[in-house]
Amino acid sequence: MRTRPLKVALLGCGVVGSEVARIMTTHADDLTARIGAPVELAGVAVRRPDRVREGIAPGLVTTDATALVKRGDIDVVVEVIGGIEPARTLITTAFEHGASVVSANKALLAQDGAALHAVAEQHGRDLYYEAAVAGAIPLIRPLRESLAGDKINRVMGIVNGTTNFILDAMDSTGAGYQEALDEATALGYAEADPTADVEGFDAAAKAAILAGIAFHTRVRLDDVYREGMTEVTAADFASAKEMGCTIKLLAICERAGDGASVTARVHPAMIPLSHPLASVRGAYNAVFVESDAAGQLMFYGPGAGGSPTASAVLGDLVAVCRNRIGGATGPGESAYAALPVSPMGDVVTRYHISLDVADKPGVLAQVATVFAEHGVSIDTVRQSGKDGEASLVVVTHRASDAALTGTVEALRKLDTVRGVASIMRVEGE
Amino acid sequence: MRTRPLKVALLGCGVVGSEVARIMTTHADDLTARIGAPVELAGVAVRRPDRVREGIAPGLVTTDATALVKRGDIDVVVEVIGGIEPARTLITTAFEHGASVVSANKALLAQDGAALHAVAEQHGRDLYYEAAVAGAIPLIRPLRESLAGDKINRVMGIVNGTTNFILDAMDSTGAGYQEALDEATALGYAEADPTADVEGFDAAAKAAILAGIAFHTRVRLDDVYREGMTEVTAADFASAKEMGCTIKLLAICERAGDGASVTARVHPAMIPLSHPLASVRGAYNAVFVESDAAGQLMFYGPGAGGSPTASAVLGDLVAVCRNRIGGATGPGESAYAALPVSPMGDVVTRYHISLDVADKPGVLAQVATVFAEHGVSIDTVRQSGKDGEASLVVVTHRASDAALTGTVEALRKLDTVRGVASIMRVEGE
Repeated sequence: MRTRPLKVALLGCGVVGSEVARIMTTHADDLTARIGAPVELAGVAVRRPDRVREGIAPGLVTTDATALVKRGDIDVVVEVIGGIEPARTLITTAFEHGASVVSANKALLAQDGAALHAVAEQHGRDLYYEAAVAGAIPLIRPLRESLAGDKINRVMGIVNGTTNFILDAMDSTGAGYQEALDEATALGYAEADPTADVEGFDAAAKAAILAGIAFHTRVRLDDVYREGMTEVTAADFASAKEMGCTIKLLAICERAGDGASVTARVHPAMIPLSHPLASVRGAYNAVFVESDAAGQLMFYGPGAGGSPTASAVLGDLVAVCRNRIGGATGPGESAYAALPVSPMGDVVTRYHISLDVADKPGVLAQVATVFAEHGVSIDTVRQSGKDGEASLVVVTHRASDAALTGTVEALRKLDTVRGVASIMRVEGE
Repeated sequence: MRTRPLKVALLGCGVVGSEVARIMTTHADDLTARIGAPVELAGVAVRRPDRVREGIAPGLVTTDATALVKRGDIDVVVEVIGGIEPARTLITTAFEHGASVVSANKALLAQDGAALHAVAEQHGRDLYYEAAVAGAIPLIRPLRESLAGDKINRVMGIVNGTTNFILDAMDSTGAGYQEALDEATALGYAEADPTADVEGFDAAAKAAILAGIAFHTRVRLDDVYREGMTEVTAADFASAKEMGCTIKLLAICERAGDGASVTARVHPAMIPLSHPLASVRGAYNAVFVESDAAGQLMFYGPGAGGSPTASAVLGDLVAVCRNRIGGATGPGESAYAALPVSPMGDVVTRYHISLDVADKPGVLAQVATVFAEHGVSIDTVRQSGKDGEASLVVVTHRASDAALTGTVEALRKLDTVRGVASIMRVEGE
């Protein structure tokens, strides 16, 4: 066994970084045995150097992250700062100075993954980021290695724990969105500013990363259709229950049409209670993968938190260290398929539409005609009325998003349609 | 990109092998892009050469597997014959002649994994076997790579599709074992001789492989406690339902006591309906993993079948080919921890015991005394009686298997205990 230790620089020492440092210390013997050489924490870049960091020698702590990644003797840089800058520049500098990089930075990978992979490849170094998607759940490695001999057709998952916690609370207690969000905030599942989670930005970044890996195609954050879950109501959950469904915020990446293009999207959707994703509770994540040969797979586990994310970071750290010792690199970016990303209008799925309509004869016929004119086939209709007002719930067969949008626009113009109360996609059938 | 193709020899062309050959042909361009070089099917060893094999050039087919693996120009041997011999000798010969090996052979890996890994390492070659456990579900790679920086404490799974199909049928229809087995046989889920499945031999081989990888320790098939599921009755399912449980055949590998040893076992067990493994239906497999940092993870998918198994084989093939091009090898055997395997008597879990007892006063006191004398603490007791006979259902707190065995032996000696109707472990709480 080689005895010169591999030197690791840690950028960021918050919830995840401190766990990475702790496990590197407490599991040092195991890591040495699994890697084939000791790993040594060579420096920790932080913003607030005066904060006491248990188990980290004060001499390792620095505020000068740039100097740390430029040292030249660093084998692996672990980036757990998050955000675009300074993370992007630091990672690029790390590659230029001979280090491989393990990152948990979904926003950066979704935006600049291709460029970072190119720099890594140019310098013959590894860029690993299992922790960027679905926390501790092994997902990047299974998709890009275990399924490397298969053809993935769809990746559909719950990849944001905060929104799943809120939706699960709404489902189980009948609470409204604001009440459930307040509970999530009080319990520490939602941040003070929950925008990135509830508006789907976090899930969209993960969808871009997953789609890129699954389809061997560059998918940028801008390519991902995104709809948050702030407008999901208790009434939507009641409608979902009537259909034997629940509501989840899903990231869905799939081949479109004849497989010549791909789509990626994040939005709330109804899914049947019998679907494995329906029973994913609380802040857990789960990702459902469909491929030609393997069929249907699901990966389930904690999607966030210091320890779970550190587990994923350390798995990557072991792999990258093993590669360095062996003089090899792991799989880099695979974007050879270069499929176009189709717009949301091309997505084909089912829809659940609630309309407020006038309670008089002929309304259903009018509405049904509009659907037919736009080529959207109706599966079921349920009508209920009181006091001159009525509601009409239409569930469609599969239709394109463009056709559905056209249908809804036309419905809004009908005198007898007072309003479109909700439109929700139905997935997982 | 390198253009000399990598040469693959396929040993066996049954349900799995023919799928591997088919996908190698239909997905040739994708495989080339993902590997960085074309892969070429250089030979297919079969027992019956006269059978027509669609898509395989007749000139590639041979009955002389030994000559094929000795050719010297083979880069990767894919072994999907199964069984101990001739597979073991062929794999060893393949390494000696410079090939890496991808195998789906759980029986061989469980029995001789250490020896085969040693030969592979001696010749600087790879031995990969994702398909040996849980078919298409990525499990070996996540355990030995994704979780390489974590400490796995328990692996508990449904790793045999045939028995899960039978138990699921008994659960949902109330059928007895024989009736459910007959249905499984008629539908092709059970073989004409179902012994390997229903007696737990297949699951035990997988448990040995999983325990070895999870705990970095050699665990042989003989180390695995094994109990089949042929004695599970409709009455057991009725009892399970009363407890809010179902019954699954589980493979359970865990650290024992203070973590200084490990245990591996296969037996039927009651698990709560709320446990993620309880809802694994039909012939699906699922494996639940608990680790220090990641927490609870679950991997779910088809555990058998030609296409799913081929997906796992091809994922390994891509990895092994990439390693060959890069002049590297992937992770070999990791058995540095060398923990002792404790006997079944040391396993600590809960128990559900049904006793037929005399229906007279004082019986419960007698029975409870026997439990107390053996240090087995009772959680609940339910008594029901008619016509002078009574039954007593005892659910215990956690106790060692040895203590429980002693308790049951003593119970059998009581005059008032007419018989021990069933003993079932309770897991997943």
